[in-house]
Amino acid sequence: MSRPRNDNFLRALFREPTDFTPVWLMRQAGRYLPEYCETRKRAGSFLKLCKSPAMACEVALQPLARYDLDAAILFSDILTVPDAMGLGLYFTEGEGPKFERPLREEWAIRDLSVPDPYDHLRYVMDGVSEIRRALGNSVPLIGFSGSPYTLACYMVEGGSSSDYRRVKTMIYDRPDLMHRILSVTADAVCAYLNAQIESGAQAVMIFDSWGGGLSAAAYQEFSLQYMQRIVSGLIKKKDGERIPSIVFTKGGGLWLESIAGIGCDAVGLDWTIDLGEARRRVGHQVTLQGNLDPNVLFAAPEIIAVEAKKILDSYGPGDSGHVFNLGHGISQFTPPEHVAVLVETVHDYSKNLRIKI
Amino acid sequence: MSRPRNDNFLRALFREPTDFTPVWLMRQAGRYLPEYCETRKRAGSFLKLCKSPAMACEVALQPLARYDLDAAILFSDILTVPDAMGLGLYFTEGEGPKFERPLREEWAIRDLSVPDPYDHLRYVMDGVSEIRRALGNSVPLIGFSGSPYTLACYMVEGGSSSDYRRVKTMIYDRPDLMHRILSVTADAVCAYLNAQIESGAQAVMIFDSWGGGLSAAAYQEFSLQYMQRIVSGLIKKKDGERIPSIVFTKGGGLWLESIAGIGCDAVGLDWTIDLGEARRRVGHQVTLQGNLDPNVLFAAPEIIAVEAKKILDSYGPGDSGHVFNLGHGISQFTPPEHVAVLVETVHDYSKNLRIKI
Repeated sequence: MSRPRNDNFLRALFREPTDFTPVWLMRQAGRYLPEYCETRKRAGSFLKLCKSPAMACEVALQPLARYDLDAAILFSDILTVPDAMGLGLYFTEGEGPKFERPLREEWAIRDLSVPDPYDHLRYVMDGVSEIRRALGNSVPLIGFSGSPYTLACYMVEGGSSSDYRRVKTMIYDRPDLMHRILSVTADAVCAYLNAQIESGAQAVMIFDSWGGGLSAAAYQEFSLQYMQRIVSGLIKKKDGERIPSIVFTKGGGLWLESIAGIGCDAVGLDWTIDLGEARRRVGHQVTLQGNLDPNVLFAAPEIIAVEAKKILDSYGPGDSGHVFNLGHGISQFTPPEHVAVLVETVHDYSKNLRIKI
Repeated sequence: MSRPRNDNFLRALFREPTDFTPVWLMRQAGRYLPEYCETRKRAGSFLKLCKSPAMACEVALQPLARYDLDAAILFSDILTVPDAMGLGLYFTEGEGPKFERPLREEWAIRDLSVPDPYDHLRYVMDGVSEIRRALGNSVPLIGFSGSPYTLACYMVEGGSSSDYRRVKTMIYDRPDLMHRILSVTADAVCAYLNAQIESGAQAVMIFDSWGGGLSAAAYQEFSLQYMQRIVSGLIKKKDGERIPSIVFTKGGGLWLESIAGIGCDAVGLDWTIDLGEARRRVGHQVTLQGNLDPNVLFAAPEIIAVEAKKILDSYGPGDSGHVFNLGHGISQFTPPEHVAVLVETVHDYSKNLRIKI
């Protein structure tokens, strides 16, 4: 096995020189694409789409057929791990994910155990292999998981929450129970990501969607600590190639130095931090991934180009260490043709920047 | 006129020595108090409660009857200004505030004008006078308003939003229109706060609930700039006493230095920033207000005490420059007896800290 033909994404993560700034978009296989909506309709439900390796592969490849993206990402849900732990994931129209059996009793928390990723999560591994096969030698495939804290939020709340009251109450009142949940979940996520790597993922990303809602001290203890444990336990090399890891805490800009210190190769950034400032703070240590406000994609094409160039200018000179992305998942209301403008601008403008150096 | 008997809140804002760390809570007059729910029921609706100076006064004083709080705050809604601008504020059960006539057309934006606070907002000024009279010489009264950007979010979206898609689209696509909205709204807020000061408010606070969702650059241009304009235009002295101002951008921790630089006396902090770190960054320049996670109030009383002490310890030695508060409004589900524990702990522990110095 060797690197894909377009390995700029991997090179950026390894801080090797790149030909241009690589770009991919969080949630790039999603509802803004009519072909995605069609496949989803055919699948019958979002969960059935996730659980069918063939259809998950189909939608994972759709954005790459349209745009010159530099990486593919596994199509799956972030809540597959707690589902495999027996909590019973389901979706209701307009309300997002829910669990049939949220963690409300001490015995249920004590009973938690690490699921075998090749058993209950077989469909994910089959999806990874199938996408990897379909990609051939074109671009790298990213595997992913939710962070232990983010998963715990759903596991304890039973679904989305506006205030995370239950999970915060447990953090402050019963930190022992919260640590038990996080500990088992961290081990489960680590095994899950390693199985994805064994199945063909060439990089992995941990999505910490809700860690940014914690206090500075609680973030270290209840989110970052467990992401560090996962990163330490990840397979570092496969078939002679290093497997890089990306950690993304939405709203984590204040804690950048400590995130960059957990041993990951790259840190994802939302749009609230200036990319140049982030580079000055931690860019010597990790690659930075981000950080355009996804709402920019609602503006006119010429504005999208201007804002994309601002991000590249803010990162500044250099031929590596930056992966362009949005600061959050792409909105379902995004006009698909606007994404083409973004991807082209990132490639063209960053190529020109490299010539100038 | 002279300062109230308990002027520790004002002294903390002026960086004069205090006897203990003063404490008040955002949304301290609210649904967690059964007596508030009773008055609200009697009023018939939240809006009627806001618009009745007598009942607004009644609920503003309720938390002070229960707890030894060091400041009262005007009871009102943050959306009174756009309502007075003709947008038609209304509330629907469970969905929060909405506007009958959101800003969707260019002509409507061009037509906006600054409302006379003594005309359409007379009920607010009457409320301020009435609360001030009822407080007698006990503790200071805080007036407040939403920030121009936060008001604009509601004015453009027509209500709450999960992604601020409309307002962001306007920012990127038609910044001229957004600046027009913000400019008129900033002048309206300034006149509104000055009228509150003339009516008896002894300090004012600007709540920027949604500025934290902007990119670093957009925050400066579309939120902070207009708060600076307001702060510059505020009445600085009334009856020989300085009137201090507090600016609070939820999620603004990354931009602390620039917020502290706009001329306000204090900066409000949410719980995501370590208070000690905030003090090191800007504590020489402004007073800091905050920053306990409101969810701590769901924990057992002894845990609440521990967490409150952590905040005071994090701020560190010194006899001024800190006003204790939550990092966000108190939750409606908070057990009222837990608030008593918090207030007592802040007073007792900070008194002891001062003795030790």
